[in-house]
Amino acid sequence: MIPVKSYAALSKTDSLAPFGFERRAVGEKDVLIDIMYCGVCHSDIHMARSEWGPSLYPIVPGHEIVGRVSEIGAGVTKFKVGDLAGVGVFVDSCRKCDCCKSDLEQYCDEGMTGTYNGYERDGVTPTFGGYSSKIVMDEHYTLHIPFTSQLEAVAPLLCAGITTWSPLKFAGVGKGHKVAVMGLGGLGHMAVKFAASFGAEVTMLSTSASKEVDAKKLGAQHFILATDEAAMKKAACSFDFILNTVAAPHDMNAYLNLLKLNGTMLLVGIPPEDNRINAAKLISKRRSILGSMIGGIKETQEMLDYCAEHNIVSDVEVIAMKDINAAYDRVLKSDVKYRFVIDMATL
Amino acid sequence: MIPVKSYAALSKTDSLAPFGFERRAVGEKDVLIDIMYCGVCHSDIHMARSEWGPSLYPIVPGHEIVGRVSEIGAGVTKFKVGDLAGVGVFVDSCRKCDCCKSDLEQYCDEGMTGTYNGYERDGVTPTFGGYSSKIVMDEHYTLHIPFTSQLEAVAPLLCAGITTWSPLKFAGVGKGHKVAVMGLGGLGHMAVKFAASFGAEVTMLSTSASKEVDAKKLGAQHFILATDEAAMKKAACSFDFILNTVAAPHDMNAYLNLLKLNGTMLLVGIPPEDNRINAAKLISKRRSILGSMIGGIKETQEMLDYCAEHNIVSDVEVIAMKDINAAYDRVLKSDVKYRFVIDMATL
Repeated sequence: MIPVKSYAALSKTDSLAPFGFERRAVGEKDVLIDIMYCGVCHSDIHMARSEWGPSLYPIVPGHEIVGRVSEIGAGVTKFKVGDLAGVGVFVDSCRKCDCCKSDLEQYCDEGMTGTYNGYERDGVTPTFGGYSSKIVMDEHYTLHIPFTSQLEAVAPLLCAGITTWSPLKFAGVGKGHKVAVMGLGGLGHMAVKFAASFGAEVTMLSTSASKEVDAKKLGAQHFILATDEAAMKKAACSFDFILNTVAAPHDMNAYLNLLKLNGTMLLVGIPPEDNRINAAKLISKRRSILGSMIGGIKETQEMLDYCAEHNIVSDVEVIAMKDINAAYDRVLKSDVKYRFVIDMATL
Repeated sequence: MIPVKSYAALSKTDSLAPFGFERRAVGEKDVLIDIMYCGVCHSDIHMARSEWGPSLYPIVPGHEIVGRVSEIGAGVTKFKVGDLAGVGVFVDSCRKCDCCKSDLEQYCDEGMTGTYNGYERDGVTPTFGGYSSKIVMDEHYTLHIPFTSQLEAVAPLLCAGITTWSPLKFAGVGKGHKVAVMGLGGLGHMAVKFAASFGAEVTMLSTSASKEVDAKKLGAQHFILATDEAAMKKAACSFDFILNTVAAPHDMNAYLNLLKLNGTMLLVGIPPEDNRINAAKLISKRRSILGSMIGGIKETQEMLDYCAEHNIVSDVEVIAMKDINAAYDRVLKSDVKYRFVIDMATL
């Protein structure tokens, strides 16, 4: 067994605090990763606080992990000691279902194994995430990190990056498309970068006028203030795609109205309550809403390779581990551009 | 001007009653149709009673019309006197926008001209529907009826038929697909017939156990009682497509759960209030919801030709014009298999 240091919540009401425990020993197909950086995803907060149903305590959050391989099992072929390695939202899946066999492990029929707040496939061993000094990973579920610098800014690609990349790719977004992005946070800022990189004409839709300058720096060509009724009316029926990253309650009908004939809303945000949808908004222009969840291992690697080639990383604010609780408070106030990343050397 | 007899409501609270007025004279590209049959669509009731916003009174409902051409304008090339002819949900559109130019007149940028409860393109002349002895139609918006008998059962194809045909075709439904149909009414019974005819394996989803026998007669191979929680759970993730014809409030999430990875709900029903959609239901299996509205003139003709070739018609109950108010009451109780059609000889 491998002793590790972590930051964890020990109950629903605890703040995160230092915590020591053991990781499983490195198995035949496992790699041991010394964690260098871990992004702070909004879902870390939800799960640390049991806001998505009861969590398993102690909980060690973190699923945007970049580190270096320090030990490998006898059967490992994909990594060698010293390689950079990444971990995203899941660490295992059934490996037998059609989804797993077609590189869509995130949709595994039996359910993927979450990087934290879940159980290993044995159903009893809890999984622990990246707010930690080390993680033991099956090599199949581990990503190569084809970067030599900016590793702190690479970490959020493992969740915020792939979550927006996958629906844009699945929908075939590219040159000639008008794409709007709803929400300029961790996911939204990656959506703008990707859609612009794919050649689309990108518009940021935001309820904060203050986001315009930044959205344009990130690659958006246009900005629409979603509270400006005249502007929203003028933009009716004008987008091929809207990528909806908003996890707060919002009037989806007002945005559906902006889609062209055959336009699609790509949905990746999960608000705390159901969205209300006026059927006529979809029917009147043959519009659709398509959900998408992170991405498979193969697709995540493709994204990382593309990002390295095109020099695309996240915009991040690096923090020390001890500042995590303050960072959580700031995330809840949307006071971050656009992702906090923990420097694990500070643990 | 052409004097006609009609059944109309003169105000929101009036029942339908005999009404005499004049139709526009037959123009150069117009045909005059002596109406033989007109289907009774649920939307007739909504609009007769101003349930979809204020209607224009007097209102002559009816947009599932079959009749015979009795006069043609000098420039008409598509019809000759004596031809059978059909009219669906719209009678005109702008003819200039991309939708109109690509045979998708129903999605016209300027809005289609409804067969009734609307205005001609001049913006002032009201349109009147099929509960009438005659209708004057531009030939472009008039369908050929390639049947020689069962004309009463052909009439509902003009709305109930094309409304379900179009999304099934757009989605590419066919052999190898598992398709569920929600709601066994005027639309649902056509959806079952079409999906079965296209080679799909069809399941009827209904909240009434009494629908099972009929659904199977219409071509469904399976039946699931939607109130049976165990059966619904067992059917999770099993359908490629669900055609949702339900216009009453319903728990859409329970049905979305039945879609496979990449499965699509084809939405044609408009409930009186917004549907509530749990984003996670879409995201967790990359599911989508696609709206669809009737069909264009070209596609409607293709459907009629296919129906004639494959002997597909609606199941109807023919009524006399004087019984229309009783028929409305029965439609509201779902007491019809599956469409009332008015025999206009009784007017």
